[in-house]
Parts: sequence; structure tokens; C-alpha cells
Amino acid sequence: MKALVYHGPGKRAWEEKPKPAIVDSTDAVVKIARSTICGTDLHIMKGDVPTVTDGRILGHEGVGVVEAVVKAVTSFKPGDRVLLSCITSDGKCDACKKGMYSHCERGGWILGNTIDGTQAEFVRIPHADTSMYHVPRGADEEALVMLSDILPTGFECGVLNGKVKPGDTVAIIGAGPVGLAALLTAQFFSPAELVMVDLDDNRLEVARKLGATKLVNSADGKAPEKVMALTGGKGVDVAIEAVGIPATFDICQSIVAAGGAIANVGVHGKSVELHLEKLWAHNIGITTRLVDTVTTPMLLRTVVSGKLRPAQLITHRFKLSEIMKAYDTFGNAAREKALKVILTSE
Amino acid sequence: MKALVYHGPGKRAWEEKPKPAIVDSTDAVVKIARSTICGTDLHIMKGDVPTVTDGRILGHEGVGVVEAVVKAVTSFKPGDRVLLSCITSDGKCDACKKGMYSHCERGGWILGNTIDGTQAEFVRIPHADTSMYHVPRGADEEALVMLSDILPTGFECGVLNGKVKPGDTVAIIGAGPVGLAALLTAQFFSPAELVMVDLDDNRLEVARKLGATKLVNSADGKAPEKVMALTGGKGVDVAIEAVGIPATFDICQSIVAAGGAIANVGVHGKSVELHLEKLWAHNIGITTRLVDTVTTPMLLRTVVSGKLRPAQLITHRFKLSEIMKAYDTFGNAAREKALKVILTSE
Amino acid sequence: MKALVYHGPGKRAWEEKPKPAIVDSTDAVVKIARSTICGTDLHIMKGDVPTVTDGRILGHEGVGVVEAVVKAVTSFKPGDRVLLSCITSDGKCDACKKGMYSHCERGGWILGNTIDGTQAEFVRIPHADTSMYHVPRGADEEALVMLSDILPTGFECGVLNGKVKPGDTVAIIGAGPVGLAALLTAQFFSPAELVMVDLDDNRLEVARKLGATKLVNSADGKAPEKVMALTGGKGVDVAIEAVGIPATFDICQSIVAAGGAIANVGVHGKSVELHLEKLWAHNIGITTRLVDTVTTPMLLRTVVSGKLRPAQLITHRFKLSEIMKAYDTFGNAAREKALKVILTSE
Amino acid sequence: MKALVYHGPGKRAWEEKPKPAIVDSTDAVVKIARSTICGTDLHIMKGDVPTVTDGRILGHEGVGVVEAVVKAVTSFKPGDRVLLSCITSDGKCDACKKGMYSHCERGGWILGNTIDGTQAEFVRIPHADTSMYHVPRGADEEALVMLSDILPTGFECGVLNGKVKPGDTVAIIGAGPVGLAALLTAQFFSPAELVMVDLDDNRLEVARKLGATKLVNSADGKAPEKVMALTGGKGVDVAIEAVGIPATFDICQSIVAAGGAIANVGVHGKSVELHLEKLWAHNIGITTRLVDTVTTPMLLRTVVSGKLRPAQLITHRFKLSEIMKAYDTFGNAAREKALKVILTSE
Repeated sequence: MKALVYHGPGKRAWEEKPKPAIVDSTDAVVKIARSTICGTDLHIMKGDVPTVTDGRILGHEGVGVVEAVVKAVTSFKPGDRVLLSCITSDGKCDACKKGMYSHCERGGWILGNTIDGTQAEFVRIPHADTSMYHVPRGADEEALVMLSDILPTGFECGVLNGKVKPGDTVAIIGAGPVGLAALLTAQFFSPAELVMVDLDDNRLEVARKLGATKLVNSADGKAPEKVMALTGGKGVDVAIEAVGIPATFDICQSIVAAGGAIANVGVHGKSVELHLEKLWAHNIGITTRLVDTVTTPMLLRTVVSGKLRPAQLITHRFKLSEIMKAYDTFGNAAREKALKVILTSE
Repeated sequence: MKALVYHGPGKRAWEEKPKPAIVDSTDAVVKIARSTICGTDLHIMKGDVPTVTDGRILGHEGVGVVEAVVKAVTSFKPGDRVLLSCITSDGKCDACKKGMYSHCERGGWILGNTIDGTQAEFVRIPHADTSMYHVPRGADEEALVMLSDILPTGFECGVLNGKVKPGDTVAIIGAGPVGLAALLTAQFFSPAELVMVDLDDNRLEVARKLGATKLVNSADGKAPEKVMALTGGKGVDVAIEAVGIPATFDICQSIVAAGGAIANVGVHGKSVELHLEKLWAHNIGITTRLVDTVTTPMLLRTVVSGKLRPAQLITHRFKLSEIMKAYDTFGNAAREKALKVILTSE
Repeated sequence: MKALVYHGPGKRAWEEKPKPAIVDSTDAVVKIARSTICGTDLHIMKGDVPTVTDGRILGHEGVGVVEAVVKAVTSFKPGDRVLLSCITSDGKCDACKKGMYSHCERGGWILGNTIDGTQAEFVRIPHADTSMYHVPRGADEEALVMLSDILPTGFECGVLNGKVKPGDTVAIIGAGPVGLAALLTAQFFSPAELVMVDLDDNRLEVARKLGATKLVNSADGKAPEKVMALTGGKGVDVAIEAVGIPATFDICQSIVAAGGAIANVGVHGKSVELHLEKLWAHNIGITTRLVDTVTTPMLLRTVVSGKLRPAQLITHRFKLSEIMKAYDTFGNAAREKALKVILTSE
Repeated sequence: MKALVYHGPGKRAWEEKPKPAIVDSTDAVVKIARSTICGTDLHIMKGDVPTVTDGRILGHEGVGVVEAVVKAVTSFKPGDRVLLSCITSDGKCDACKKGMYSHCERGGWILGNTIDGTQAEFVRIPHADTSMYHVPRGADEEALVMLSDILPTGFECGVLNGKVKPGDTVAIIGAGPVGLAALLTAQFFSPAELVMVDLDDNRLEVARKLGATKLVNSADGKAPEKVMALTGGKGVDVAIEAVGIPATFDICQSIVAAGGAIANVGVHGKSVELHLEKLWAHNIGITTRLVDTVTTPMLLRTVVSGKLRPAQLITHRFKLSEIMKAYDTFGNAAREKALKVILTSE
């Protein structure tokens, strides 16, 4: 079969690889129907993720059709259309029993990382019963690809951890795909104000269409002052960090109101300075989280019922075989005005 | 001044009464700008509420202007426009410290019950600092009258107690004003399905306009079967009882899914049969509550931000001096297609 | 092998049955080391549980040694000492993902009910990875038998559902084994008062030794008045129903304070009268639950750390082969002053 | 009257000051019966708290007798024995309605800070109804002095914010009075292990007597390694920071398990380095809080019921008039083996 293979920093190829087969009795082999590229894949291509080694098939998102399962898999059979979770969960370790699938003892984020991933014609999915979901009848499968990673990430790490409530003022720092996923799902809880902060006016305009009530361009370094002015000096109830650098975490520290929350979503490569000399008495909470995808069943229901329309995040479409070009486009997101790309198999 | 006065079952008059004065240092005297009539007022008129005695001015809802306060009231001054809460809270007893204002040791539901109420030109409000709210600049005051009682009742007793969550299936039994208030505020949490159950097709149509996704006319006694069919035999996550009779509570018992909740909002005059022989193993919760109005500040923010539009519940408007006629209309709600009436002073 | 077999109401025998074998790839076969008899087994013997049919091996509690597993079971191997849960969980259905194992689509309470149980020399355990627990090194295995059912039942259905908090006043109605399990585990949360209500002075004395701070003998029908007097007329924050008849549920309704909770633990055979005409405005919660055993890992930690000493509930010990005599003793609990009996294999 | 007066860094005097009088209608004047000295008072004496100015009477803890109130105070009358809260709450601002008294718009920590405090013969208490508590009949008043600040601080900022649960492993960094208050109150929730970390073997021994199950002397800089070894490499569920310097916050970051919590209690004078490059995927929460004293009524119940015995923290007793000597002793806590001192008026 063909697959997108990592060959060290900066090197990738769409090349022939052996078709995967079932290894453990709880595996499924799935034929990929649709996949996408994640910001994390770009990090991998830069060499920032040392667990990914030469020869690895990338990708941890997708929708497909079950090709093969054996007896221990009881929830799926060949021919079933399935949504693949970016997180593999065995459903039985201590972490999974607590709903913290991201720290599964036999899973977690392994697809396209320590085992081969979904940017390929076929993929092997371990612990299939607890790591895949049935595609609801009639669902838009392009929209569902957004549920492999990006929507649960914005929702769980940003919105749920931030405890967004009706009437709240929420700021989201970073209007990339994950920040916009937080924007879409924050609206589940009817906040009064949704302030979007980004450097890129195009992305801010997208945010406005997706529900942001206030836009702040932070290119002048004055985002904190602007957000404080918008909130009458009180600050925000919830600040969602969706970038992953010290400067954006700093904005969050500066704008969170007493009693508020900072929900970190961004993947950080460096430490940040936490201003406890001010914040010790500010009654705040700060959370971190690798997405657990524990809310996927709920997100599926909101998509089916029309409360959530994640296809709004899709800006580009390619054939799966054009994935090399898709990487180029997604890798120049600002210039290409790209959010999420869809790769469709033929 | 003029006021609507109760003179025993079936007898009411719009008559002259002394203008109220400040009694305690925490009182305010408020000139009524807008008021309304509650289903509870009709119960009082039937003689069902023994704490209400001959000579009492009725009414526990309204918006007005502060006429007088003395020094211990620090949050309000004469001229301030205020929303009056149906629940009086002293802000300092054990119940109030827990947010259970309904059981305030020196308050609770007393307006238009054990002290004179708001269907008058003026009203005395005890514990003014903790029982009134500033009208936000530019707010629609007719809409705010809905926040005195009906919106927090539907929201706190129905939606919050029922723990409505994104993706849930919610049934509301009773499409009267309080059931519709639950319908409006349930949407804060983005349930997948909102099933409205009522005997009256007109009210069901109103419910559809206000956001119900499924309508069930229960006149044939088959509401449970219909709701179970709509939910694929699973039942609903949340059943909100907004009528107050055994038959409607029974519907709730029949349709609640394992792990679900029954949130009682209705005012009951009789006991009900609770089927513990079935429900003991069904992992459900049942809640009861007299509204606390603890969410009024939050509801105000959602009205100001446009997330909640309670004016949709208003069907009729009268001058305050026409209140006798307004009672007649509201007392024939089905025939008059009346939900909430607004009474405006001149 | 030998097993205790149900042959219709009132008929049981310790007789030869085929040794169980692995049927599904997720099964384990376990050699029973210790078991016990549950109040539910007595209900079955009366013919009250129609799902139990002639020929069924009873029992849903026990500790044993893994005899055989096949490849899909990854957490256990032959020779492992294991605690058996009364609830079978597949770990992957919607109910299990929510932690509601009691309503597992392929499990729930099936042991000694719809499949053969643990009052035998060997038992087949379906979904072994998610329905058994490793016995911690050095643990008292007699104590652990209490964790198969009775301790999680008292804790989850009574204490957790009742939301017992530090400083609370808690009443437990029924000082049988499950009520005493609630008494032991309520102390995890340091309530100020633990009032035990029962008809039997011997059981009340046991309750005092296990931590009850007040005892109420309800034989005179005056339990509500006595409890109200003990609480200065306020009632209790949490009332735990651990009997399962209308009279004891009534006591709970009479004594629950405004804002309080009634947590039903008892298995009810009849409906009860719920006094909504009083309780609608009382801001209470009522919960029902079949035990999920979702807290078993946590209870194991509290036993190992010495915070919970469930062996205090054991009053009698028999050889497994003496189980017919053990049933006679346990069936005359009041006369024999029996709480829990331990059956040990030779 | 006599009072302990701050006269700039390092300068204090027990000197004559005017007896306070009622200023606002919600004030009380209280005759001090017992007071104490807080670590914060030592910070003030170093000049670290710029809001405290020359001439200020220090102290924010104490028990006393109401000397005078006027009409707007309805819960207290002259002669009542009262516990004074370190936090003044008006009971009516947005913050107080949310239970965040520490950020009260007209109060917060003002006693012995921006208004005169409790280390005096008399003190004026603003917002008396919501800032004082009745001393329960027969209560040990020395023990209650611990409830003015230190117990709610350890409990709210450490134990409640850390969400300590039965079976948890909890580490407390810092065995000073506040860390020990966290130790005492963590036991309300029956954690399996309570690891105490400090530099001082004497304080660690005290911790053992008060319930710590493991002791770690951190003088060698190896606390993280030791705690990880004690937890089998998993880390702790809850890490409570009760010192207030970067080094102790660092220990917390190093030992918190995936899914765990860091609850900051310490007063920090500098920022800390937060290792988001590791923690972003670790699913943790970090909280900060100035004590709200919202749990004081509950703590009072646990003291009366004997579940909490805060008098164990008292090591020294002085007459109020000996307060200059008491400061010397408390200021040399390690050498004097001092935890809390009690000052009693004559």
C-alpha cells in the first residue's frame, strides 16, 4: 500500500509500505477513507518529537472502513464505517478507568508516533473496541474527521477544563484550528462574550464567523490591555491558551479575573514564568491536559443533532495520493489561509 | 396608592391602600414600573395557599425605580432602576450562605404571600441589597420582568437540577410559562434533543418556535410510549416536571433513562406514587426545589448578551390599572393563548 | 466440582456440577478461596428474583486464584490471587465508559443470577480484565470478600450518592450488613453525627462500635420524632435508606433537612408514597443505584492503608463445604447475631 | 486601650490607642478575649506588606465578646461570644455571593492590614453579621482562635482546592502552622498516605503525631526523588505547597502524578518557573487562593463534634499584655519549637 513516511527532520515521502495485519486479538485493520494533517505532524517534520523515528507512517486522524477484526473485538465487524480516535485506549488500565485515556498504560497517543498512523491506505488500530467509534448513519464524514483530535482537544483541554459557564467572558489565545475548535465548543455553554486573540486578521475574521464576539489583534503586544479594557478592568472568567509559547501564556496570566481559570491547550517546548507573587491570592486555577477523547460519543451526538458543525474548519481538499502537496499547503497556513485539509482516498 | 388586593378565595379588588414606608434599615421602597401575574397568584385566588390572608397585596415579580432607602442599604440609591426578585434573601443566614435563598431565615418567598407584593404602585422590599438587582443600561425591562421568578425557576429547578449537558436528550413535561422557561434555558447547555410534552397543541407550537426539537401531545395518555419510541427505547437523560400533578410525575418516572435525572419544578398538592420497585436499580436522581434566584446575576448577563431572549414569553400587555382584566385573561390562558402578561404603570 | 445450587423457592443443595471452562476469549476460570452469602441470596431462595432459574449456582462475592485465562486477558495470569466483583463490566459499552458498570450491556449483576456464581469450587468470570482485581500483597483476604459487593454498595449507593461531607449529620436507616457498610464508609468524609436507626438493639450496639454517634430504636414507630429532636428540629443532611420497605423510606422523607439528600440503597419490592406536596419546595435530592463497583480500586487502597477495616463485619466462619449450615445461620441473622459469614475452601 | 502597633519595618510597640467606636451601622465593637500572631504579621514586621502603614494595630485572628452593635446588625447582640474571621465579608457583593469572600468589594483581608486589627483590647469589626460567628456553647475558645485564619487557610487553599479524596496519596510541603492545618484537615477525606516534607526534624515529628504517614526531610535537596520512591514512581495525587518559595513549588511540580493537583497555599514574593514543556500533557491542575473562610461554619461543626482538634497546634501561651515577648518567641519559631501562640486578655 501507499503511505506518507517520515524519514528524519524535513524528509517525507509518499511511498510503498507493507499493508498492516492484525497482531493482537483486540486489533482492527481499517481502510482509510478520509484523513487530515495535524499541527503536530508539522512539529514531527521539524524533528521536535523524538519518539517518532525514521520509517514511521504519520497521521493520527481519520475515518475509514473496517477491513478485518478477530474474535476479541465485539463492537465492530468488517464493513463498518468508523471514526478513529487519535488516542488509543485499552479500556481497562487505571488511567482508562478514570477516563484519562491519554495516559493509557498500553495506549495514549501512539498512532503516527510510536506505531504507524493514518496517512496511509490502511492502518492497524490496537484496542479497537475502545479506540474507534461507529460513524452515525447519514453523518458527514468530512466533519467527523475533525472529531479524531482537534474538536475533543479544544473541548476537553480548553472548554471543559476551563469550566466555561453561561454568561461567562472567555478569551481564546490563538485562532488556529485548535483555538477555533475551542471557540466552536465553548458555545455549547453559552458564554456571554467570546474574545478571540491572534496575530492574523484573516484568522480573526474566521473566528468572527464561527462565533467570536470580540476580536483582538495582538501584533502590537497590547493584548492584555485591550482585553482588560473590553472587560471593564475585571479580566476574563476563562482564558484558553491555544498556541504553546511563553508570550501567549503570559497574556493568559495578565487577563484572568479573580476566581477564573487558565486552560492550557498549547503544546509547549519551553517553561514559562508563573507570576505567583501576584497570582497566589487571585483564586485561580490552571490546567494542562493531553486530550483524552473521552467526550467523543457526546461530540458525535452534537454533530448528528446539528449543534456542532465542525466542517466549518475545512479550507482545503486533496486526494490522499496528493498528500505531499497537502503538506506544502498546510505548512504555509497563513499564506494559504489554511485551517484543516481533508485527504480523501479514491 | 392603588393595589391588587386579595379578599379570600375568588375575591380580588384594585383598590386604595396606604403607600408603603421603610420599616427596617435594610428596606427599600420601590415604585413599580412593570409587573406581571404568576400561576401561583391563580393558586392563591383559589384559596390554595393558606399563608395568604385577606387584605394582602399580591405579586412577587417586577421592575421598578427606587423611591427611598436608608443608610444600611449601600448598593442602591433613589432613582436606581431595579429588578425585584421573587425571593427575599438576607444574605447572612445559613441558608443564604449556601446559596439556598428560598429557605432564608428572614426571607424566602414572602412577597405577595406573607407581606405585601408587587401588583401595586409601590412596594416595600426587605433586605434590599440582597433581594434586588440593578437593571443593566439599555436592557429591555419587559424581558427582565421574566427574570423575577419564571426564568430562574425553570433554570434552577429544571435545568440546573437536571444537570442538562451537551448532547443530552431532555424532555419537559408541561409547556406552560415555567416549562417554556426551562426550554429556553436548557439551550444554554446544547442538548441534542428537547422533547416537549403537553396537552395543548398551541403551546406545543410555541415550544417548537422556542427551540423544542420534538413535540408530544399527551392527551391520549400515551406520552411515555411516544417518548420511548423517540429515544430508541432508551429514555431521556433528563425529565423536567413542570406541571405539578401525579400524572405528569408518572410520565417522568416512565421515561427517565438509567443514569438519568427527574427534576421537579411543578408545585404539587398531592403525594405521588414513586416506583422504587423498578427504580431502585435504575441509578437515577430526583430533585425538588423552590427557586433560589441565585442565578439571577448570570441570567442578567445572558439577557444583556442576547443569549437569552425571555420577551418571547410575553403574549399580552396591559396597563397596571387594568390588572383586573389582565387576571381574567391570564386565568383563561388556554382560550386566550396567554403565556405571560406585562402590566405597565403609567 | 461441588457447588451450592438453587432448585426453586426454598430448595438448595450442595451438589456435584461440571467444573466451568473458558467460553469467550475474555473469560477467566477462578478457583474460589473464600466466598460469602448475601441478603440477595436469601431473596433468591424465597423466589423473589425471577431471573434466577432452577439449576443455577448462587453467589456473587469472593476471592480466589486464577486457574485459566486465554490470550485476550492481559491483566491476569494463572496463579494470580483475585478479588471478584459482584458486577461484571465489559469496559467498553456506553454504560461502562460512564462508570455505570451496573448497566453494562454485556454484564451487570449476572453472577449467581443469569450465569453460575461463586458459591462453588470454581467459577467462570466473563470480561475478566475489567471484572476482577489483584489482591494486594499482604492483604487480609477475608476483609477483601466484603469488597465484592457490600462495601461498594454501602459506599456508592449510600455515601457517595448522599454526598456526605465533613460536619454533616447523617442518618442510616437499617443496621444490617449494607447499612453498616455505609456507616463504615461514611466516616471517610468525617460527618459530625452518624445516627443509626434500627429495630434491633444488638445491631445498634454493633453500630456504636463501628462509629455511630447516636442510636435510635425505631420499634415504637417514633424514629422521625427522635431524629428531629436529636437535630434540633432541622433534620439530617443525608438520610441513607438501607432496608427496602415503604416504612423506612418514609422515615427518610420525614427527617431530611431542606437542602438535604435521601440516598436509597435498599432493594424495594413495592412502590412508596413520595410526599411531593411537602417536598416540592424542600430542595432535596433522592437517588437510587445498583452498585457499580467503580470505587473498588479506591476501596482497596483504603483497606491496604488501614483507613477501612471491613473485617469488623464478619461474625461467623464456615468451610465452603459447610455452606448449607452457613445459609441456616445467615438466614436467622437476628437470632444468631449474624452479619457476614465467611466460607473458606479447603 | 492598649494595642500592638506597627511603626515601620522592625518597629512595634504595645501602647495606648483610642478605643474603637462604631462607624457604620453594620459594625460591631468586640472586646478581645484571645488572639494570636500569624506568620503574616512577621512578614508585615519585615516591611514586606506595603499596604500596612505606620500606626496600624496588627492582628487578624481572635475570639471575643460583643461590646456594642447598632440596629442593622441582627445576628449578634452585646455579650455574645464570637469568633472573628480574618476575612471581612459584606455578604452582598458579587464576590461574596460566589463564596469568594477574600475578594469582597468592601472587605477581604483588611483587619490588621488596612484597618486596625485584633492584637488589642478592643477591635471594630465591619460587616459584623457576615464576618463573625457565634462561639458554640462549651467550645474550647483557644481551639477556636485557630479557626480565624490558619485552619480555613490549610483546608480551603490546600485540601479543598487539591480535591483530596479517600485513598489518595497527598504530600504537604512545609510543616509550619499552615501546613499542619492542611495535614489535620486533609484527614477529613481519609487519604491513604499523607507525606510531610520539611527541613526541620522537630516539625516532622509533630507532623507524625498529627497524622502524617510518611516523613521526608528535604534538607539534602532530594525530596522529589524520595517522594517518587515512596509512591512507586507514580507521584502524588495532591501536592500542597505551604511555604511560598520557588524551591518548594518546584518540589510540587516534580512529584505530582498525571491527573493530579498542585494546591498552592504559600504566600509567594517571587515568580516561579512552571515546566509546561513537561506538564502540558500531564493532565494536572494548579490552584491559588487567598482563604475565603467560607468553610468556617463547617469547621466549627467538626470542632464541636471532636472530628477536628486544632488546639494541638498551640505550643505557647501568653497574656495579651505580654505580646511583645510573644512576638519574640514566635519570631524564633525553630529555636523555640513554636507553632501557634495564644494571647489571653486578663
